Amino acid sequence: MNLILLNASDFISESCVQFEGARLAHIQNVHGSKIGDTVRVGQLDGLIGLGTITELGQHKLTLEVSFDQKPPAKLPLTIILALPRPKMIRRIFRTVAELGVERLCVINSYRVEKSFWQSPALDEHNVHQYLIEGLQQAKDTALPQVSFHKRFKPFVEDELPGIIEGSQALLAHPSLGESCPHQLNRPITLAIGPEGGFIPYEVEKLQAVGFEGIHLGKRILKVENALTTLTAKLYS
Amino acid sequence: MNLILLNASDFISESCVQFEGARLAHIQNVHGSKIGDTVRVGQLDGLIGLGTITELGQHKLTLEVSFDQKPPAKLPLTIILALPRPKMIRRIFRTVAELGVERLCVINSYRVEKSFWQSPALDEHNVHQYLIEGLQQAKDTALPQVSFHKRFKPFVEDELPGIIEGSQALLAHPSLGESCPHQLNRPITLAIGPEGGFIPYEVEKLQAVGFEGIHLGKRILKVENALTTLTAKLYS
Repeated sequence: MNLILLNASDFISESCVQFEGARLAHIQNVHGSKIGDTVRVGQLDGLIGLGTITELGQHKLTLEVSFDQKPPAKLPLTIILALPRPKMIRRIFRTVAELGVERLCVINSYRVEKSFWQSPALDEHNVHQYLIEGLQQAKDTALPQVSFHKRFKPFVEDELPGIIEGSQALLAHPSLGESCPHQLNRPITLAIGPEGGFIPYEVEKLQAVGFEGIHLGKRILKVENALTTLTAKLYS
Repeated sequence: MNLILLNASDFISESCVQFEGARLAHIQNVHGSKIGDTVRVGQLDGLIGLGTITELGQHKLTLEVSFDQKPPAKLPLTIILALPRPKMIRRIFRTVAELGVERLCVINSYRVEKSFWQSPALDEHNVHQYLIEGLQQAKDTALPQVSFHKRFKPFVEDELPGIIEGSQALLAHPSLGESCPHQLNRPITLAIGPEGGFIPYEVEKLQAVGFEGIHLGKRILKVENALTTLTAKLYS
């Protein structure tokens, strides 16, 4: 937690916030802060600034806050990701927010087990919390846009052409196309399959709407490492 | 598990292996394989090939194997890493093997809690197992070289000059030096601090033996994401 994110409901006046729970515990136990100390704070989807601790109780913390900086720029990157297995969802969503990805579309795919869609990790509250964790790590305040699409074909045929408009559409898939390029630094829509990869039919559907294949060489990486590796290469 | 790694003790003849345990469970439950099916296999620190299932019992699997391919090349990369917190050790060691890092030196640092060195995750058997998991994911057979160095100053002064010889020595640290370069594709020694970073004294000691600072921009990434991101940028 390199920045404490504040919600509208934390504000008791324009320059004063109060909260309890995980953020209080972190400030007490990890930072070891005391009254008078400052912590970096940010308004959710707003500016970054500093907070000075004015009250520090066992159950409540009060900060005087001021804001003066914009959050870091997002990468102009939309990731189309086959739903990961439930135990990986938290880490992947946190990483997406941490890396500064602008938009994430989570989709179905043949190799996604149906039961994955029932995971409590996909509850709106949990997804929000994972994204917040990533933002607090990266000192960002701006939530990425996240959406879920349970039907592959209608999504690819009807929605994806609009999403990729104005961007370069890349499909990461073993042995497909060229080795992943570096430092494109432009708007990109990047499709990443599930563990085991998209099936040939899905690859063809994505190619049909304009995706070009790229690969990461002979090594098959876990989805979360592939996502981080591709993002790192594509942007400076 | 995209490849099943075989130890010398699995061989009952030159072209026949037998094993039980996690690898058997994976072939049965994840691959859903049956007699006559083939699986990709590799000899630990040796060649890659195919195995044909000739016997498949509840407690034992027999494969006829042949080997004909070299594993993918390692990256000419040595990572000097401050000991991560115990719950991250498995993931980070697995990732180091998965990405093809040649050598990992795990070191002490001011911000590493002393108790971390007592973690069972550092037992030789466990470390070996985490590396094997990474190799089996990436279809590699060659173990990275891993060593542990509990005293920062003697390591940096006495051992590090020999380790970095013939390589470019880079220190990843927020706001230090230039933005991380892309596609250096040459021998590199890369130092990565703990969560919270190396302290100024440690940065100076590393610079004194020849490390140049590089950074990843305004976002502060978790150690495992920083490691993957840096490796992805530095090599094609």
